[in-house]
Amino acid sequence: MNIDINCDLGEGFGPWRMGDDAALLEIVTSANVACGHHAGAPVIMAATARAAKARGVDLGAHVSFPDLAGFGRRVIAMSHAELEAHVLFQIGALEAMARAAGHRVTHLNAHGALGNLACADRDVAETLVRATRAFDPDMALLVLSKTELESVARRAGLRTFNLFLADRAYDANGQLTPRARPGAVIHDDAQVLARVRRVLEDRTIVTHDGGRLEIDVQSILVHSDTPGAVTLARAIRVEIERAGGAVTPLSRLA
Amino acid sequence: MNIDINCDLGEGFGPWRMGDDAALLEIVTSANVACGHHAGAPVIMAATARAAKARGVDLGAHVSFPDLAGFGRRVIAMSHAELEAHVLFQIGALEAMARAAGHRVTHLNAHGALGNLACADRDVAETLVRATRAFDPDMALLVLSKTELESVARRAGLRTFNLFLADRAYDANGQLTPRARPGAVIHDDAQVLARVRRVLEDRTIVTHDGGRLEIDVQSILVHSDTPGAVTLARAIRVEIERAGGAVTPLSRLA
Amino acid sequence: MNIDINCDLGEGFGPWRMGDDAALLEIVTSANVACGHHAGAPVIMAATARAAKARGVDLGAHVSFPDLAGFGRRVIAMSHAELEAHVLFQIGALEAMARAAGHRVTHLNAHGALGNLACADRDVAETLVRATRAFDPDMALLVLSKTELESVARRAGLRTFNLFLADRAYDANGQLTPRARPGAVIHDDAQVLARVRRVLEDRTIVTHDGGRLEIDVQSILVHSDTPGAVTLARAIRVEIERAGGAVTPLSRLA
Amino acid sequence: MNIDINCDLGEGFGPWRMGDDAALLEIVTSANVACGHHAGAPVIMAATARAAKARGVDLGAHVSFPDLAGFGRRVIAMSHAELEAHVLFQIGALEAMARAAGHRVTHLNAHGALGNLACADRDVAETLVRATRAFDPDMALLVLSKTELESVARRAGLRTFNLFLADRAYDANGQLTPRARPGAVIHDDAQVLARVRRVLEDRTIVTHDGGRLEIDVQSILVHSDTPGAVTLARAIRVEIERAGGAVTPLSRLA
Repeated sequence: MNIDINCDLGEGFGPWRMGDDAALLEIVTSANVACGHHAGAPVIMAATARAAKARGVDLGAHVSFPDLAGFGRRVIAMSHAELEAHVLFQIGALEAMARAAGHRVTHLNAHGALGNLACADRDVAETLVRATRAFDPDMALLVLSKTELESVARRAGLRTFNLFLADRAYDANGQLTPRARPGAVIHDDAQVLARVRRVLEDRTIVTHDGGRLEIDVQSILVHSDTPGAVTLARAIRVEIERAGGAVTPLSRLA
Repeated sequence: MNIDINCDLGEGFGPWRMGDDAALLEIVTSANVACGHHAGAPVIMAATARAAKARGVDLGAHVSFPDLAGFGRRVIAMSHAELEAHVLFQIGALEAMARAAGHRVTHLNAHGALGNLACADRDVAETLVRATRAFDPDMALLVLSKTELESVARRAGLRTFNLFLADRAYDANGQLTPRARPGAVIHDDAQVLARVRRVLEDRTIVTHDGGRLEIDVQSILVHSDTPGAVTLARAIRVEIERAGGAVTPLSRLA
Repeated sequence: MNIDINCDLGEGFGPWRMGDDAALLEIVTSANVACGHHAGAPVIMAATARAAKARGVDLGAHVSFPDLAGFGRRVIAMSHAELEAHVLFQIGALEAMARAAGHRVTHLNAHGALGNLACADRDVAETLVRATRAFDPDMALLVLSKTELESVARRAGLRTFNLFLADRAYDANGQLTPRARPGAVIHDDAQVLARVRRVLEDRTIVTHDGGRLEIDVQSILVHSDTPGAVTLARAIRVEIERAGGAVTPLSRLA
Repeated sequence: MNIDINCDLGEGFGPWRMGDDAALLEIVTSANVACGHHAGAPVIMAATARAAKARGVDLGAHVSFPDLAGFGRRVIAMSHAELEAHVLFQIGALEAMARAAGHRVTHLNAHGALGNLACADRDVAETLVRATRAFDPDMALLVLSKTELESVARRAGLRTFNLFLADRAYDANGQLTPRARPGAVIHDDAQVLARVRRVLEDRTIVTHDGGRLEIDVQSILVHSDTPGAVTLARAIRVEIERAGGAVTPLSRLA
């Protein structure tokens, strides 16, 4: 059982930083790097690419609507042509940093409002997939299972990896429980770890309404901006190894 | 005698446009595309890449300091590591557009304050060259002759092409006469064309102080934002053909 | 019959300009000045304030969602507290320019997506009105008749002036016909002038579906970015004077 | 002996925050609020204005060159007309927030590169003073003694208050020792407090070269982004009271 631990990194801007990137890069096996649209800046992207290369961590483009002031959590209305160009822009910018670091961008993850929309809206999912394939048909896509993005990506022949958000509740239909609903975000680390353990054991989670849902998981997400993210990431790593799994970057998963 | 006609394109932003890109793309053989730092936006870059591909026009990254409000005409103080990352960011972003259009970024040109600084400051020239080579050692650099950028690029083994700014006066040392000096910019089209003719004939120009300067020219620049740019570009094309030359994209120059 | 001619000005940014502000300032009697959110920059705002003062033109804040890249035509999701702060920010910034020019900001007009939303959404209308009153209870609001913004503003005791968009079709309910619908924008100057004439004669317009609608008009809007805006503005001025009216700034309307 | 404690606040942007504003507002007596140019956002400015009002803390505009990515620490080249407009823009934007909070902007402080330049460059000092007076001739200016800004402001009849940077070394000429020099920033709290004590006792400081310099002090600055800023601010407050002084907002200093 190989499984990836995945983290959002490089989410600073100007004088501001978010999360303990250096510590997380010692633990996770793949990084989604902010590309300047919701956070990030060239010099941060370059440093993250170098650090990821040095630690054997996979590099992914964490693409977003252009919205620094809103941290990419707002839908910014645009045509599909415009969105496609925004996604390409971000992947390409990160790829240049990867090249300079002797690394490569091997996966894509959609951040915030763009990620949510790509789960639910087929046209947006198709735009994301089109941009990703146009850049590199071998690039993998991180997806949530049972979403438009997953099905569109698979139909298009893109490799997908299923992401498990251990600190988020899921509805019975496999979608994330919206943040606004009570209990949508799980703040208790013990509970988060219990969910990880269960998923590793039998690929199931307990849903928000108490049911049982089978999910397919290749990667576990750690939110870098949660307090205690480093501790939690380490604990998840221990859980995976205790369950007999090997923590493995996406690019080396079968 | 093969010679390239080169133009700055894609210099719009948001609702604003600059220059008649569509008309110029029918005339020039290489385009320097704004990459969002002094002008430009993903959707403009994507459209320009497609249009350039359709017309066989070479695609170059027109890299700049990050300064939309100042159109890249101001030096923005930053470390060399930061500048290198900014240059990589812009090339990569454009390369992604090129890929989606079935095209490639084959040259780089430094815009505005960054271009001026790279002519005069060896460290900045080295940073530009380092970023360019890290991205693609086969990429060519547009340079002015007798500048730091030219000598640094050649020493580093990058291909360079010499740019002639037909509407700008040159000092006796081969540098552009600073814009602030009277006569630095030549507004009369007939005079501009006469300069082009002379350069084509014997590779010389009359300098600002009336002297005669030999210069090496592989590409003639047309400023897209000058009134009458399209007419001037057409006239330059006619001059080149009249002189027995062939207007040829940089990537097909020997 | 006193009536104001109103125009959106200062809609440049960085090296870009939009519309012939200098010519329009000779014709119109009130200006809505972009405050940096959809367009505009401090130095443009300052120059516009001085020019308006010199010509006796009223100064209004043309407030918008923060969206330079989308020219304020997109809804940017935010809380009401955040929107209120954005509106205050823009009015205050313009007021500072007005003070330095010996002028005053005496009205507010909501641009683009914010304007549309304030017509239709009571909470947004209330937020706009709250911000305006908090800044200056004597400030007037430009409104379209039969909108939420008009009714909220009047209930709150703000002075309102009814704006007539001569180049836009109206639905039977008094709302603007959405831009996406054919015939929503009237491009023929003769037709625009005929509509102005009719409104001046009997305060009615022919609606999009051919009906007749009474509307109350204190100000006629000229879009500065329409080709021929200057000619049209002049013709509207002539129409008003021919109808026996006096072109009068908002602040001097009864 | 009345003395003000002064702090830079509201230095967040988008999802990022800097410093513990809530705690500092309980201790300091005047706040310099970032106005969106080096940091800050409308909603942060509005909240800071309300919090300052509630605690009787003076409100000042912390004006900067427009440079979020560089936190206002870089000189952004611009004409004096443009700089004047940028300063006015920021004061006005904050004044609008103050009005909505029932408060007023009563002083101005120049941040980062603009502050440094205004100390040394008479033209920049004059531009700052001109903008401040144009907005409100009763506004006070926070200055360092023996600088161009101080002398220009006094000549222009603006009220000035002398700021003491307790954690920065001073040269014998009364200027701040440049940050690049060793010992320019004093990181040891005990040493900082000793300097405060000395200044309170006899209005002198020990300069970087060990000499003794008399300085006039009305306000002591606490950097909000220093680790331990809250503790240090409290300790400075205690020092002032122990020395028999009263911690007093600028607007109530004689």
